[in-house]
Amino acid sequence: MSADVTQTPLRVGMVGSGYMAKTHTLGYANAALIYGADLPAVERVRISDLTPELAQAGAERWGWREAAGDWREITGAADVDVVDIVTPNHAHSEPAIDALRNGKHVLCEKPLAISPDEALAMARAAHEAGVVHMVGFYYRLWPAIALARNIIERGEVGEIRHFRGRFFQDYANRELPHSWRFDQAVAGAGALGDIGSHIIDIARYLVGDIDRVLATGRTLIDERLDADGNPAVVSVDDIYSMMVDFSGGASGTIEASWAATGHKCDLGFELIGDVGTLRFTWERSNQLEVYSEADDADERGFRTVLIGGVHPRAGDFWFAPAQGLGYGDAFTMGMGELLEAIRDGRPAQPNFTDGLRAAEVVDAALRSADAERWVEVQHRDPEIGDGDD
Amino acid sequence: MSADVTQTPLRVGMVGSGYMAKTHTLGYANAALIYGADLPAVERVRISDLTPELAQAGAERWGWREAAGDWREITGAADVDVVDIVTPNHAHSEPAIDALRNGKHVLCEKPLAISPDEALAMARAAHEAGVVHMVGFYYRLWPAIALARNIIERGEVGEIRHFRGRFFQDYANRELPHSWRFDQAVAGAGALGDIGSHIIDIARYLVGDIDRVLATGRTLIDERLDADGNPAVVSVDDIYSMMVDFSGGASGTIEASWAATGHKCDLGFELIGDVGTLRFTWERSNQLEVYSEADDADERGFRTVLIGGVHPRAGDFWFAPAQGLGYGDAFTMGMGELLEAIRDGRPAQPNFTDGLRAAEVVDAALRSADAERWVEVQHRDPEIGDGDD
Amino acid sequence: MSADVTQTPLRVGMVGSGYMAKTHTLGYANAALIYGADLPAVERVRISDLTPELAQAGAERWGWREAAGDWREITGAADVDVVDIVTPNHAHSEPAIDALRNGKHVLCEKPLAISPDEALAMARAAHEAGVVHMVGFYYRLWPAIALARNIIERGEVGEIRHFRGRFFQDYANRELPHSWRFDQAVAGAGALGDIGSHIIDIARYLVGDIDRVLATGRTLIDERLDADGNPAVVSVDDIYSMMVDFSGGASGTIEASWAATGHKCDLGFELIGDVGTLRFTWERSNQLEVYSEADDADERGFRTVLIGGVHPRAGDFWFAPAQGLGYGDAFTMGMGELLEAIRDGRPAQPNFTDGLRAAEVVDAALRSADAERWVEVQHRDPEIGDGDD
Amino acid sequence: MSADVTQTPLRVGMVGSGYMAKTHTLGYANAALIYGADLPAVERVRISDLTPELAQAGAERWGWREAAGDWREITGAADVDVVDIVTPNHAHSEPAIDALRNGKHVLCEKPLAISPDEALAMARAAHEAGVVHMVGFYYRLWPAIALARNIIERGEVGEIRHFRGRFFQDYANRELPHSWRFDQAVAGAGALGDIGSHIIDIARYLVGDIDRVLATGRTLIDERLDADGNPAVVSVDDIYSMMVDFSGGASGTIEASWAATGHKCDLGFELIGDVGTLRFTWERSNQLEVYSEADDADERGFRTVLIGGVHPRAGDFWFAPAQGLGYGDAFTMGMGELLEAIRDGRPAQPNFTDGLRAAEVVDAALRSADAERWVEVQHRDPEIGDGDD
Repeated sequence: MSADVTQTPLRVGMVGSGYMAKTHTLGYANAALIYGADLPAVERVRISDLTPELAQAGAERWGWREAAGDWREITGAADVDVVDIVTPNHAHSEPAIDALRNGKHVLCEKPLAISPDEALAMARAAHEAGVVHMVGFYYRLWPAIALARNIIERGEVGEIRHFRGRFFQDYANRELPHSWRFDQAVAGAGALGDIGSHIIDIARYLVGDIDRVLATGRTLIDERLDADGNPAVVSVDDIYSMMVDFSGGASGTIEASWAATGHKCDLGFELIGDVGTLRFTWERSNQLEVYSEADDADERGFRTVLIGGVHPRAGDFWFAPAQGLGYGDAFTMGMGELLEAIRDGRPAQPNFTDGLRAAEVVDAALRSADAERWVEVQHRDPEIGDGDD
Repeated sequence: MSADVTQTPLRVGMVGSGYMAKTHTLGYANAALIYGADLPAVERVRISDLTPELAQAGAERWGWREAAGDWREITGAADVDVVDIVTPNHAHSEPAIDALRNGKHVLCEKPLAISPDEALAMARAAHEAGVVHMVGFYYRLWPAIALARNIIERGEVGEIRHFRGRFFQDYANRELPHSWRFDQAVAGAGALGDIGSHIIDIARYLVGDIDRVLATGRTLIDERLDADGNPAVVSVDDIYSMMVDFSGGASGTIEASWAATGHKCDLGFELIGDVGTLRFTWERSNQLEVYSEADDADERGFRTVLIGGVHPRAGDFWFAPAQGLGYGDAFTMGMGELLEAIRDGRPAQPNFTDGLRAAEVVDAALRSADAERWVEVQHRDPEIGDGDD
Repeated sequence: MSADVTQTPLRVGMVGSGYMAKTHTLGYANAALIYGADLPAVERVRISDLTPELAQAGAERWGWREAAGDWREITGAADVDVVDIVTPNHAHSEPAIDALRNGKHVLCEKPLAISPDEALAMARAAHEAGVVHMVGFYYRLWPAIALARNIIERGEVGEIRHFRGRFFQDYANRELPHSWRFDQAVAGAGALGDIGSHIIDIARYLVGDIDRVLATGRTLIDERLDADGNPAVVSVDDIYSMMVDFSGGASGTIEASWAATGHKCDLGFELIGDVGTLRFTWERSNQLEVYSEADDADERGFRTVLIGGVHPRAGDFWFAPAQGLGYGDAFTMGMGELLEAIRDGRPAQPNFTDGLRAAEVVDAALRSADAERWVEVQHRDPEIGDGDD
Repeated sequence: MSADVTQTPLRVGMVGSGYMAKTHTLGYANAALIYGADLPAVERVRISDLTPELAQAGAERWGWREAAGDWREITGAADVDVVDIVTPNHAHSEPAIDALRNGKHVLCEKPLAISPDEALAMARAAHEAGVVHMVGFYYRLWPAIALARNIIERGEVGEIRHFRGRFFQDYANRELPHSWRFDQAVAGAGALGDIGSHIIDIARYLVGDIDRVLATGRTLIDERLDADGNPAVVSVDDIYSMMVDFSGGASGTIEASWAATGHKCDLGFELIGDVGTLRFTWERSNQLEVYSEADDADERGFRTVLIGGVHPRAGDFWFAPAQGLGYGDAFTMGMGELLEAIRDGRPAQPNFTDGLRAAEVVDAALRSADAERWVEVQHRDPEIGDGDD
């Protein structure tokens, strides 16, 4: 580890001052209160955006000491230990690689990059830098999902047979205006890359690597109005379905859409083993459903386990079970993981390799949809040995 | 219509005296009480099985007047108006075609046949006979599913975007002994054909014909013990996943498994339109979930509609809503539909063309899984004009 | 037992030919098919109503051999073994007592009577007759509820602390016309007696006798239109709430209303023990929710147990779990219980003593609501030793 | 208003440094980030506890500038504008009244006091001081509950007929050691006062004042081990049930227990109107169930409305609906309400009068349980005109 890992405050710089700057800033503020002196304190040193004015507004709004109109003032700054990148998807790799080359720890929002090549470059840079690197798939840190993994590791579902994952929302159902998310050149992919990458990461976290995919996608709304009220072409998918084979032998289906009417934040899965099955949806994020054949024959059924202090990471928060954790708390856990990894000089999870792997699956899905056949996922080697979950 | 359709009692003969003889007999008995004089009375004339002894036991158990060791004593009998076929899958076509050629109305259990060619021959015989023919996909008669169709036809879900169907059970999870269901030569297909055909029929009923499929299947349990305790090879699938394109433009995924741990009778679907979405599972068969963007913005959510007298066919049953209809009542509705169609000289639903269409989709799925690519569903023409739903 | 209990067919006479004649007739017809030769066959000998014409219409509609304009042609008939009473509440006791004095087995719809005195007279007559007597609280035979009792008896909920029962429907919400149900002189009580008696019986079945109650009730809709469109006064309660103490030490609350908007058939309870809790509602009648502290600390949660063949009485019905039992099947179970009790010369459950006990609780609730204080339930002794379950 | 209400930072002093200091500190920190410059900034000036050492530990842990071993260094300090009281129940009134007399704005945790007399003294002091006062019933600020109130105010449930409220948890099921919460002298009441007061406040918020109650309570676990492992007597209730009459004419039942096995944080209610019904439980705190007779007859059912930006106060938080708010966010809303009320010089909700009203209902319940009869709630007049919502 090249960066400093003592309990002296970590100096963070943030690249981007939009919506995700809010959630990350909350994450740092809350991590300090939730974890206290167990973790390094954080100084919010500097925040950047495309112009000094935008950056200044962000600094004031989110409570950062300084503003910068150029991200190089962060990635190359001597007074920054950690670079946190919350820009649009296509603007991740350049600052990330620069920060890594400067020996900074780097947290980068998901998806890591808009192509697997770009993601590979980032993962290699991270590997070479030997710092802590992390990608924003915080959901795998979430108590209910971490509990799912614990139950799997205890052998309670037996051999995993089938995984059915989805991320369905409907915020882009019809009215949502055009933006960079609907432009393939900037976003890489549509629902598949933007929200689908989350469920791909969860699939990998719970089941293992994906070897091959058979995918199909559609654009449901061809045109959206831009900020000026003019029609703009949508060049990405609104819905994606794929069948997948996992390296461990399980099969699966994964679907993603941001135009799935009625679904609000349905990041969900069902994981079917030969002696147990698990179910989850983010729409009821404080519970996990668990079915076990170890239960008595006449009392078998899905248990609705409400998350509380006995579950992973939840014990840091509230007194009574089921008081409820929210979306904001996922960032407290995420920033906590980052800070703890830096403190301990250990890899963070999920890291850039995980980000690369998700990008590879997205890429394979895009190629499969074009080819209309099964496509092998090409696993690139970032030559890192510091862990892939 | 060549068979007699007056209100004089209809004389029914049943081919097969096993488990499904029970449900059909219950259906006839209950139809008489539920629908009363509105429908023709039924005389349970004769039941057959492989031997006279088996048939006699069935006649006594289920209350049929006579027993026959040969189904030809039913399909060719002058005192039989309706032939009801409840034999294993591979033994449907011969008695069905014989009965049709003899001018009998025919009800045949699902799947109609073990190959699309066989199903085509049956559908053509039905067309030529000009009688009432029906296949045992009773679920489309079910109140919650018929309500779904009504809501779709009213335009309340808008344009259908995506259909996610499944039939997951776990009764063949591990312990279930070998039987004809696990032998491809007799059963045609495994979970795909046996239970998957139900969800294929529901998909067609709600969305329309399926044009092409991309499927993959697996045998999860390679060997099962036969009745003598010896290992016997399983030659059919335990789980099937497919992506489908509907003729109307919607996409879809359909999955079937009888080894899906924790799922007991999860015949379910989600149908996503651009302004509304519907959800159903047989595990809570007396409810339909309905989401509509016509609701006020801050009160939108899936409504759990509990089935009662205002819903299709449920009004024939109980006084208060949500008192609950059961699996047996599906057969009352099924036999009621058969008797009503005969009375009115109109096609029954679902009929042999529907059975053929499901067989075609199963066939396309099997071919797709072999070819590992999209396969067009080959629609055969039974040259009938009496309706396809 | 004075009546004949051989496997020769039992000759049943029915007093009343209205809606409940339908459900009971279905029960007898289905019991014959579901249980087969295990139980006595049933001959539907004669049905009565207030006039010969009404009775004749009932006989034809429900398939009874003869009609009678006077119930004495049933209760006193030499060719009747079992008398089944499905008249309005105030017309139960006279034919029941007459039938009992004539040595008939008697099944009487619930509530047994419109006052505890009347119920006591009936229970005493039943005791003296030494025949099989049964009251129509079929819900305690229902698989999910019988499973609840099994779980309690195994000690899995531990000591019962609290029972929260309810029967909420909304069919009398506003529009329902006036009828005998809204007239205290005929009905005895309103929602409390009519539907509340069901949840009182379930409470007694699962927890034990109720020693004292503290109740309050209200008429929400003072006036309803009668059949001629004239306003008629409602003299019974639309909603009742009570707190109860059980003899075993548990506390409880019981509520009933037929004007509880949104509740369709919410006969439900929660039973809280010191190490486990059970939940049920008839609106999802094929499931029981089970919470147990015996589960691992991080996997505790309510299990949704879907009813199937491993559960009480359900194994007589369908092949696969969760195929679903309906309201009609409750009558198959009820008639099955009656026929089995007659066959075996054992008490049926629930019997007239259970009917009496429910009437006593209703009476205590009415007195408590008047007095606005706790009232002891007066347990009358029918001097019978044949079981109060 | 005597205290300063400009946008200059508000200087807060906190009395108590235990668990609730954590949630309140998080609330202040997050309010600053969520609401930004819309609300006054907060300086965490000073925190007190029983000893200087405890206070110092709290100050370090939760990030307060100074520590004090005596709360008078806060309530009487010239550099404090707002006093926030998070001590055990019996230690609320003295510092609160002192702070009020010193012209501070006061936030006090719930229940306001351990007797209605004490609560009255506090409410009167608040009235006389003319400052902003608030009691910690934050749940009424919660989006799903505020949405419920909006729906009621729009007339969509019609006339409220019945309210069924509960707060059931099981953290004190058996193993929990003795503490001040189990000692009547310190806590005032048990589950009734501690957690029951929350549902009483929600009942008042949604339905209106409670006029009379009929209550019964029980101690389920008579003895608990103290910190030294010695048995200590429990002098408070573990479970309370009451029937209530609201001033507006509705009836209701309210129950509270901290030993309700299986319930984790089941603060829930059902509110039944003549044309609509609402349901909520904190265990799924991001949803409200809404039933409306205005829906089409065959599409009526409880809608599960998932909370998002269109709902009260939720729009300040995340981008997409159903991302989820947690228990911590309730404090952000609470502190936000406090700061906004101070900024605008308006009463906060819920305020000390609300705290008094809850105490009066608790008191009436305790008296009713003793008397075993209905007891009128004695409404004391704090002579304040600044709103009881």
